[in-house]
Parts: sequence; structure tokens; C-alpha cells
Amino acid sequence: MPESDFILDSRLESDCHILGRLDTTLLLLMDNSLVPWFILVPMAEVTELHQMERDAQLLELEHINLLSAYLKDEFSVDKVNVAAIGNIVRQLHIHVVGRSEQDYCWPGVVWGAEGRKSYSRSEVQTIAASIQERLGGAFVAASVGK
Amino acid sequence: MPESDFILDSRLESDCHILGRLDTTLLLLMDNSLVPWFILVPMAEVTELHQMERDAQLLELEHINLLSAYLKDEFSVDKVNVAAIGNIVRQLHIHVVGRSEQDYCWPGVVWGAEGRKSYSRSEVQTIAASIQERLGGAFVAASVGK
Repeated sequence: MPESDFILDSRLESDCHILGRLDTTLLLLMDNSLVPWFILVPMAEVTELHQMERDAQLLELEHINLLSAYLKDEFSVDKVNVAAIGNIVRQLHIHVVGRSEQDYCWPGVVWGAEGRKSYSRSEVQTIAASIQERLGGAFVAASVGK
Repeated sequence: MPESDFILDSRLESDCHILGRLDTTLLLLMDNSLVPWFILVPMAEVTELHQMERDAQLLELEHINLLSAYLKDEFSVDKVNVAAIGNIVRQLHIHVVGRSEQDYCWPGVVWGAEGRKSYSRSEVQTIAASIQERLGGAFVAASVGK
């Protein structure tokens, strides 16, 4: 689909900060500083991972790999949780979450867990800058802060 | 790692039925007939998806695609949930779960949800046969039933 026609789901938009784009994928940061929680939203019309076109799927796998390694290196997380769920928000989106054995809902999953602490604007900008430094040209930053 | 050296995590072994193998990946069925819930266990030593070797990762993606399409076609599920979590069991494993809007914990996630109904031996054998029919030569069935 033409990127200009893409509309981010309203719930994702209200729950997250838009950090920028990786190729034709939006990179979001869940507005919960209790864990580093990224969400990849491919600008595609499908709702399931396996319905993506092959090239787009491979590119998404690359994004997952990059973000996972970034989480391990920058946040020293104990485990990366990667998931495409979509029971509530059907627009295809992939969670890449850094988990620590001391975090607010360990060892449970973050989906459905109570607990939330919003980021300050400068905290979001710091994360966006660190992503930019790590991912370089593949990442096009959005104007951060809402 | 040599496949002969691979030992399935004891919790996965006790919670699941071993259906068989897809290439160098074990295919398990969670022993909960409330939802069709498969688990892929690559015979690798890594604990994170992004640490897999490229070829193994692409093969796993293929398994996820096959199982997802199978769930959609055979179980008429409304949504497929795909996840690599591993907070409790560190051995790398990928959940591929078929979800329906009427199932026991919709729209919540299955991880951590209460509710369980064991399969009968013949139900497991039926699913194994259906996988065999769908996936053909790529799938090598185990002796099913524990």
C-alpha cells in the first residue's frame, strides 16, 4: 500500500510514542518506562505475520534482530520477548520487549499486566537518539514528543 | 549442536505432547485442548531468537508461516498469536497459538491465563495426522501419546 495511505491504529497512537521509521515500518515506544518496550508496525494491510509478502517479512525479521540486540546491549536486559498478538488491536504490530528479572511483572508477560509509568519528553528523546546512533541510516526519526 | 545431544527442557516435556520434528526443530502441542497451541523448539543452544544462525532463523520463520496458515485453515481461528518469550523456560521456544473470539481467555494472552483441559490420546493422534497430511515430508512424526 502507498505509505501515504497508511493510518496508525488509534489505540497504538495513544499508547505509544512514534520514534520514527525503519524502512516501511513504524517504530513505536510504548509509553511505559517500567520496561523498554518497542513496537514495530509494518505499513501493510495484512493482520497476520504469515500473510506478509516474503521480502517484507524478511525485512521485519531484520528489524526484530536489530532491536533485540540493541535491547541486550543498551539496556542489559535478561530476556527479549518478541510477539505478534493482535487480539485487541488488529493492525499488524510486533512487540519487542526487554525484560529484566527485577522488572514490574517478571516472569509474567507484559500484556495485560497492571503497572505503568509514562516517559518524560526528554527520556523519549534520549531513546530516539540512541536508536538513531545504533541503527544509523536505516532509521528515520520522527519529530519526537507528544 | 548435534541433534543427539539435544535435551528438551523438562517443563516443556511435562506440559506438552511431542508431535514430531520439522527439520531440526521439535514440534510440540501444549496439552491444553481449550486452544490449538503449538510450540516450536529449535535444536539450538541459543536462548534468543536473534542469536540464531541466519539459515536456522529463516527455516524457523518458514515453520511459523506453515503452522499459522494451518491454524487458520484447519481450526478457523480468528487470530494467530506468535511469540518467543522464555522468561520461565529459557530454552528457545516459539509459541504459535490459534485464538478464537470465543475461547477461554480471549482477548487476553494465553501465557499466565488460568484454564486447562488435557487432550485424550486419540485427539493428539488426530492432530498429529492432520499436521502430517498438511506438512508432508517436512514433518517427521514422533510416536505420539505419553
